[in-house]
Amino acid sequence: MYRTHTCGELRLTDQGKIVTLAGWVQRSRKFGGITFIDIRDRYGITQGVLNEELNSKIDNNIPGREYVVQLKGLVVERSSKNINIPTGSIEIEIKELNILSLSKIPPFTIEDNSDGGEDIRMKFRYLDLRRSVLRKNLELRYAISRSTRNYLHENGFLDIETPFLIKSTPEGARDFVVPSRMEPGLFYALPQSPQTFKQLLMVSGFDRYYQIVKCFRDEDLRADRQPEFTQIDCEMTFVEQEDILVMFEGLIKRIFLEVKQIALPNAFQRMTWEEAMWNYGNDKPDIRFGLTICNLRVLSDIFPAFSKSTATSPLYLKNTGFPIFDEAQSILAICIPTESEITRKEIELLSEWVKRPQVGMKGISYIRYYSDGSIKSSFDKFYSESFLKEIVLYCKSEPGDLILLLAGPEDITRKAISELRLFMGEKLRKRNPEEYKLIWIIDFPLFEYNSELGGWTARHHPFTSPKLDQIELMMKQDPKILNQEAYFEHPFYNIRANAYDLVLNGNEIGGGSIRIFQRELQEKMFAAIGLTEEDAQYKFGFLMGAFEYGAPPHGGIAFGLDRLCAILGGSESIRDFIAFPKNNSGRDTMLDAPSKISLRQLKELNL
Amino acid sequence: MYRTHTCGELRLTDQGKIVTLAGWVQRSRKFGGITFIDIRDRYGITQGVLNEELNSKIDNNIPGREYVVQLKGLVVERSSKNINIPTGSIEIEIKELNILSLSKIPPFTIEDNSDGGEDIRMKFRYLDLRRSVLRKNLELRYAISRSTRNYLHENGFLDIETPFLIKSTPEGARDFVVPSRMEPGLFYALPQSPQTFKQLLMVSGFDRYYQIVKCFRDEDLRADRQPEFTQIDCEMTFVEQEDILVMFEGLIKRIFLEVKQIALPNAFQRMTWEEAMWNYGNDKPDIRFGLTICNLRVLSDIFPAFSKSTATSPLYLKNTGFPIFDEAQSILAICIPTESEITRKEIELLSEWVKRPQVGMKGISYIRYYSDGSIKSSFDKFYSESFLKEIVLYCKSEPGDLILLLAGPEDITRKAISELRLFMGEKLRKRNPEEYKLIWIIDFPLFEYNSELGGWTARHHPFTSPKLDQIELMMKQDPKILNQEAYFEHPFYNIRANAYDLVLNGNEIGGGSIRIFQRELQEKMFAAIGLTEEDAQYKFGFLMGAFEYGAPPHGGIAFGLDRLCAILGGSESIRDFIAFPKNNSGRDTMLDAPSKISLRQLKELNL
Repeated sequence: MYRTHTCGELRLTDQGKIVTLAGWVQRSRKFGGITFIDIRDRYGITQGVLNEELNSKIDNNIPGREYVVQLKGLVVERSSKNINIPTGSIEIEIKELNILSLSKIPPFTIEDNSDGGEDIRMKFRYLDLRRSVLRKNLELRYAISRSTRNYLHENGFLDIETPFLIKSTPEGARDFVVPSRMEPGLFYALPQSPQTFKQLLMVSGFDRYYQIVKCFRDEDLRADRQPEFTQIDCEMTFVEQEDILVMFEGLIKRIFLEVKQIALPNAFQRMTWEEAMWNYGNDKPDIRFGLTICNLRVLSDIFPAFSKSTATSPLYLKNTGFPIFDEAQSILAICIPTESEITRKEIELLSEWVKRPQVGMKGISYIRYYSDGSIKSSFDKFYSESFLKEIVLYCKSEPGDLILLLAGPEDITRKAISELRLFMGEKLRKRNPEEYKLIWIIDFPLFEYNSELGGWTARHHPFTSPKLDQIELMMKQDPKILNQEAYFEHPFYNIRANAYDLVLNGNEIGGGSIRIFQRELQEKMFAAIGLTEEDAQYKFGFLMGAFEYGAPPHGGIAFGLDRLCAILGGSESIRDFIAFPKNNSGRDTMLDAPSKISLRQLKELNL
Repeated sequence: MYRTHTCGELRLTDQGKIVTLAGWVQRSRKFGGITFIDIRDRYGITQGVLNEELNSKIDNNIPGREYVVQLKGLVVERSSKNINIPTGSIEIEIKELNILSLSKIPPFTIEDNSDGGEDIRMKFRYLDLRRSVLRKNLELRYAISRSTRNYLHENGFLDIETPFLIKSTPEGARDFVVPSRMEPGLFYALPQSPQTFKQLLMVSGFDRYYQIVKCFRDEDLRADRQPEFTQIDCEMTFVEQEDILVMFEGLIKRIFLEVKQIALPNAFQRMTWEEAMWNYGNDKPDIRFGLTICNLRVLSDIFPAFSKSTATSPLYLKNTGFPIFDEAQSILAICIPTESEITRKEIELLSEWVKRPQVGMKGISYIRYYSDGSIKSSFDKFYSESFLKEIVLYCKSEPGDLILLLAGPEDITRKAISELRLFMGEKLRKRNPEEYKLIWIIDFPLFEYNSELGGWTARHHPFTSPKLDQIELMMKQDPKILNQEAYFEHPFYNIRANAYDLVLNGNEIGGGSIRIFQRELQEKMFAAIGLTEEDAQYKFGFLMGAFEYGAPPHGGIAFGLDRLCAILGGSESIRDFIAFPKNNSGRDTMLDAPSKISLRQLKELNL
């Protein structure tokens, strides 16, 4: 061993000991005849002092930044203590100094706030990882996975490894494939998730399974997506939705308690998908703040439980000559309780913001409800003040509020108001990263209409079970949609799934479902999403076969570990929580991969 | 929840409780008006009884084998108890019986000893996994990985995930590759091990790393090899070989204690590679039994520490007209202490055995050293009895022994005697699977001569460091071999590595080394194994670059989890310890993978 102690270990009580430390030179300073050398390792930093004799021998060859050195010496009390670090009361009187390894000057400073840009830090990732910010991120990641393993172990889950070289069955996302050398022309695929394997394990009777496992999706990368990512993947037998929600609330509570020392409430809030869409315009609502949507007009049947409630809105069917409203399928609003702070100029900027192509609205309307009770709007000439008052009342607005309104087609308007809500929440500093609000979103639609395919796709995935009382409806119904404009009139539109997402501060951190375990229902599901019988058999014959030999009811969930780490670490970027991530083009710039392979390799693979 | 208790949980103390169980029907038996139904889950088996009333309702529709059922009923004491199972004192008086899922008749019996052949059981792996043998294997695997994680956690190791989509740098084994869709013509590779990444993590200062991780090698599959396999992969900073050996003896002791309730000796035996080869003919000696090799003649310099010792052997340079001996480069023997049990016929069979092409010897010679002191051999006519006596003495043989001798070229003769030794050990029942003998093999040669390449390859891998005092020799020496027949005269032949293997009952279960951390030495190593400077830079530039910024001394080890499980589970086959293994042709016959992919996929990948 090159050391007797780490660089974070020595205290005043170690005074008088002869110790050996090894680590990286954080900095060295020469003051006349004395040199101070701070050495660093994962555990901390310790100050060493070269006495005059040794100092004179070293002369000007003081080890530079990031040199790896070994110090032997005596632990002594420091005259001027540094209370900011745990070892700050002592220093090492160096008797022997060995340079183990030299270092060139790093291409960027290895400090909490590095001067290096993203590209150079990615290329020299091994140096970036020396920064304590990144080191703490990976330590946090380990702490989360450790808590996860302990909790699941205590609850009887078995960690079972599933294969990485599997069969390509792309539904939705693209597979990465691996050419077979032994069978030219054939391919393995890398798993997008261990979904079918964990279901087979339930059929095998393993009862409770988990795995912290890499998954792969060959998608066009958006910012902060990685082609390989890690899931906490779980499955349970003989359970209903309620059992899963309770079990995994327990997991998340355990992680927060152990990793963040935060005690979360005993039961998390729950909200149906329809409620979430209606009130937040989003199936992953950030519930740290209100500003919920006021539905002033919704001329569509896509929210059967709520749409009728808008009929009492003053704007419901009113036609008053204001074309933006008159022509709108939906008119949605949010009430901002800080009228005085938002100037006309700022509203104009908001208007520009919603007009960006990503949002796609034509503009923003507003009503100012002054503290004195008077009301003014951006569309005064079309409506009387008493009518505006009706709107204000319908929106349950308070004096002092600013009401922002968007009008247009239901889909883009709801998306836009949802984004506007988040934007305003941010602006009003209501999205505190130190506040953690969790909510289960339940009762998702089983199907989703896909206009490209002109048919249904599975909203979660095709292994998700419909609600028990809707199985019969689903089995009987022809999936064909007669009129593409009114797909929500098809009975499939209203089938709800036993599916659930866990949402943390507006981010989906996990999702799962109770699964189909009956062959007939699974066949019907595949047919509904447009797989021919042959296709279904070719791709998933093994699973449907398994359902014929005593498949138990089962369900599960998967959490995105990268995202969970990022949120708990208070960061926007999952890359900061992955040791060796790819960049936004899917490249590893440190390795320079992907890269060419040799002709011999290509030939062997018959490519 | 479909159950209040598992099928392994109820005891006499639960008498009188109303419970709900769910599980698979192990069997059902109808006796007149009463039916017994045994239901099974991962936790055990419980007997249910249908009373006459319910029985008559069910009539002949008794749930069949492997049906999934839910029973509600009263826990009562059994009249005839089954002491073989923990729930054997009670049974459930069934009040309600729900069939959750039907089952066809399985293609093989789901019992400890199945009637299904390997192929059918692989195709229906989800049914095979229901057998308690396989279930226990996967539970054992989980217990081993759990022990591993706990031990490494307590010793300050961090679990850090390394990437799966990396750069292809095949040295030795073939890479599996993954075509890039975003960059046509370029490929990722799947890691053969996280070697370079864990070294980078040490350069980054993570100090102690571990991972239980899948690795991939596209090799021609021999029996019991898998294209994807799992390693317990570890690395430590500021350590010497001794530190690693001690740390990982601790790991193995912990696993044995927790998983097998076996306390291993405090320190494991150690043996140099040369000792192992000299005495056992093998670098993974099974030390559960003796029968060590007697080196009667070794006319080669490949064991410098030992070869000279054979000079005192009566057969060393003797030329006596027995051509098999006279022409042999090496004459090696083992003494079997059970002369009386081995007949002439059996020796003839042994002779056939060593003549098989896999062993490649021309035959076997023997000396019988009778209890009365007389000596007889298969080559009596060439040697006097007094000469035979000299051999017997040299071999330290006891009266009663049978001495088996093989003669021929050094390499194949040593291999053959090693296999003969194992074969005889097996025959003499000296290889008890319940006995566990561990040994470190150390001081491996750094290089190995590869006659195909006509040059050196790295015996362990090219990141392994030579012994400290041999670095200078290595740096100075030209790797070129002047005379291919005498490669062992080249100074590289005698360079020993800081490498170590852990061997359990004749199986290598782990291996590692102290690593090179100096750019110049790494460059020399790459040059020695025939990589051009450009090649080395292209493939491993990132690692050599990292060595320029303060790389600490470091080393590590990796254990093959699949093999470790198999040995601890007392099985020959690693497949029995993998949930979804490939067959010997690298196929997953359950999924039918590898398989064709769609034209669209091929086109997107530019293949």
